[in-house]
Amino acid sequence: MADFVGRGGRPDGAPGLILNVAVLGEGMHVGAWRYRAGAASDFTDIGFYQEIGRQAERGRLHAVFLADTLACAEENFERPNLGAIDPTIALAGVAAVTSHVGLVATASTTYNEPFNLARRFSSLDHASGGRAGWNIVTTFVPDVAANFGGDRLPAPTDRYARAEEFVEVVIRLWESWEDGALVGDKIGGLFADKARVRAIDHQGAHFSVRGPLTLPRTPQGRPVLFQSGSSGPGRELAGRTADAVFTAQNVKANAQAFRADVRARAAAHGRDPDHVKITPGLLPILGGTEGQARARKDELDRLGGQAELQKLALRIGVKVDALELDAPLPLELIEANQDFRGSEGFRSAAIALAREGRLTVRDVLYQNGGGHQQVVGTPEQVADVIEEWYRDGAVDGFNVMIDVLPDGLMDFVDQVVPVLQRRGVFQRDYAGTTLRQNLGLPVTA
Amino acid sequence: MADFVGRGGRPDGAPGLILNVAVLGEGMHVGAWRYRAGAASDFTDIGFYQEIGRQAERGRLHAVFLADTLACAEENFERPNLGAIDPTIALAGVAAVTSHVGLVATASTTYNEPFNLARRFSSLDHASGGRAGWNIVTTFVPDVAANFGGDRLPAPTDRYARAEEFVEVVIRLWESWEDGALVGDKIGGLFADKARVRAIDHQGAHFSVRGPLTLPRTPQGRPVLFQSGSSGPGRELAGRTADAVFTAQNVKANAQAFRADVRARAAAHGRDPDHVKITPGLLPILGGTEGQARARKDELDRLGGQAELQKLALRIGVKVDALELDAPLPLELIEANQDFRGSEGFRSAAIALAREGRLTVRDVLYQNGGGHQQVVGTPEQVADVIEEWYRDGAVDGFNVMIDVLPDGLMDFVDQVVPVLQRRGVFQRDYAGTTLRQNLGLPVTA
Repeated sequence: MADFVGRGGRPDGAPGLILNVAVLGEGMHVGAWRYRAGAASDFTDIGFYQEIGRQAERGRLHAVFLADTLACAEENFERPNLGAIDPTIALAGVAAVTSHVGLVATASTTYNEPFNLARRFSSLDHASGGRAGWNIVTTFVPDVAANFGGDRLPAPTDRYARAEEFVEVVIRLWESWEDGALVGDKIGGLFADKARVRAIDHQGAHFSVRGPLTLPRTPQGRPVLFQSGSSGPGRELAGRTADAVFTAQNVKANAQAFRADVRARAAAHGRDPDHVKITPGLLPILGGTEGQARARKDELDRLGGQAELQKLALRIGVKVDALELDAPLPLELIEANQDFRGSEGFRSAAIALAREGRLTVRDVLYQNGGGHQQVVGTPEQVADVIEEWYRDGAVDGFNVMIDVLPDGLMDFVDQVVPVLQRRGVFQRDYAGTTLRQNLGLPVTA
Repeated sequence: MADFVGRGGRPDGAPGLILNVAVLGEGMHVGAWRYRAGAASDFTDIGFYQEIGRQAERGRLHAVFLADTLACAEENFERPNLGAIDPTIALAGVAAVTSHVGLVATASTTYNEPFNLARRFSSLDHASGGRAGWNIVTTFVPDVAANFGGDRLPAPTDRYARAEEFVEVVIRLWESWEDGALVGDKIGGLFADKARVRAIDHQGAHFSVRGPLTLPRTPQGRPVLFQSGSSGPGRELAGRTADAVFTAQNVKANAQAFRADVRARAAAHGRDPDHVKITPGLLPILGGTEGQARARKDELDRLGGQAELQKLALRIGVKVDALELDAPLPLELIEANQDFRGSEGFRSAAIALAREGRLTVRDVLYQNGGGHQQVVGTPEQVADVIEEWYRDGAVDGFNVMIDVLPDGLMDFVDQVVPVLQRRGVFQRDYAGTTLRQNLGLPVTA
């Protein structure tokens, strides 16, 4: 156990492995909506998200993590998609029926204003007793730009320059009230100590924001910062300011290198590397036997039709008819595309996986469900991967992407979590009530 | 009863009087936070808003209405202020513990993007089973401009030009999915009928938005539109698109004229005037006897100190030292201020009240608590005003502003609501589960 504690385990000696549940549509698999028991419209029903929150909390998972995108794309006509419902609204509904699980919402620095975003996440943090997190994305989707006046995407470097400044402004707003500035002395009539609340007077290249925020410090000091995006600027943003990183990693050695790189960047910024948690996506497809798991995967694939292949083509930046199922993934074609403006993280994760294992397109689809590592197998086999990657320093935990919601989450909680707990790898109870406490992060001053 | 039904009463014959509860800080009165039993920090606690929602629903009130402003002003250091917490987050928390009461959040057209706002309110509408409303404001506060890159406020006409276009875009996004476009045929594999979802392809002076929205039609068709702002452009926006209007009216004859004007504008736009509900603010300060009510008001005033006078000075656009408690309100001085950029509605309501009754500054403070009509008296006296204004066609209902929350709301529900119900003026149960049903508004196609 000592190695876990030394790597950011809990102060009470419990293991430090982090497991969040990532919510996309009605399940990560493109066939989920047809496979599951509930109505296709459940993604619009707050009860759906509340049930996920309850199940996650039953399993002592650290957080419910909602992906997001600000457009109705072709995918939205084919299945429930990420970003349909505003994640902060969904998570405010989850907050009301849970008490410990963290609530992480994705929001874009390119298509929001820092004052609005700072207030919204501070509000969610207050409303949940200190369980909110913001997953920072810079957005690389042309469909989104078209909803915000733009006819083209900003270049990646511009997006990240704005993001760096955006995050700085948000943090300063969150910290504009000193702890204790809200005095609340009803007898003496002193509501707030104005000397302990400061305008931020930010004047930068992208934003001019006076502040202060309308809200005092939150129960955990400020919301937890997740960063998504694995490019150079993304890693730098993570090293400088993020508490946790969501990334796509399919090869353990690459994940080790990624984690080491982000930790080194954090140290270079004078931070404790243990205060940056690396949590790649992991999609388990479970069965009582390996054969049952494969049957579940095959049935989901059948229901999903061509959508998995289309998703892969989009993610790696080639046309769908350039992909033949039993041919090798066309690495040269992919790398020749200089105009690619999508996620570097997803593309490089797929390339790395295919190169490492000399995989066919069919193999990639099997091991890389939509960009993240996919494990089709028994609860023990899934627990093996989680434990091995954690022990070997490739991750601090995983954002577990559930194939079919909420049933697949119930299976994960009932079947995988107990194995990890028996092995001493995963917590049997929460360390505290705030997300910072539960992730082993310092409460900011 | 016939006159009520004819004036927009419920189809089932129940009276059509609308009563919402407006939430500002921990009560409308500036002394509320010191008077009440709870902690000064309760405005950051979701339980505070949830309790208000539960009490409102117990009283069969139509909606919980949250004011908003996007800045930490001087007031925020003196007491819990409106806009501290994001209203949509607070109301998503209220939605989780209620089933019938409407949830109306204020949001600015000047400091939001239409796509984000459309999605957020659609999400709240879905999350609440069709109980969401958006109170449209254009924002007239310099402190807010400073948080959004601006060094000065846009002129009123510019604000309203943007607002008109903003609201048009939001409505088109809300209606971009035809009813039934989400097919959800799991067997056949047809999730959505793409032919029944349309991009809006909006290209205007202020916005370029392609759409469609990420969400299908909500359970009530689309969120209810409240409009706040009583200037000419505000009335025009209300007549053209609003379902309800929040306004400050202190003199019954003026309220009658205001209501007639907005109804006429609605008719000129081809709308049924009964589909625009006029709901001014009303602040009751209750006591078992008139003397007890006055004692409550005096104690609140004592606890509030100079804040009431400062608020009045700000609202009418004069310096606080130009106001002497026992001198007449200085009407000439007020009307001489050509540079006034605040709310025309609040200023003219105070002027009208003072002119009508030849009131001193002290009188205005007593009858006009922060801009809205204030009634200090017994439950019967408060019910008398509500009934008279409703019967005489001055209002369709009121946004009831509670002096001290949540206790003052419990008193209103326990003491005023039953009087109005016994008189046959107020509903004994909800007409339905959506806000449109309960307000007697058509479900949009």
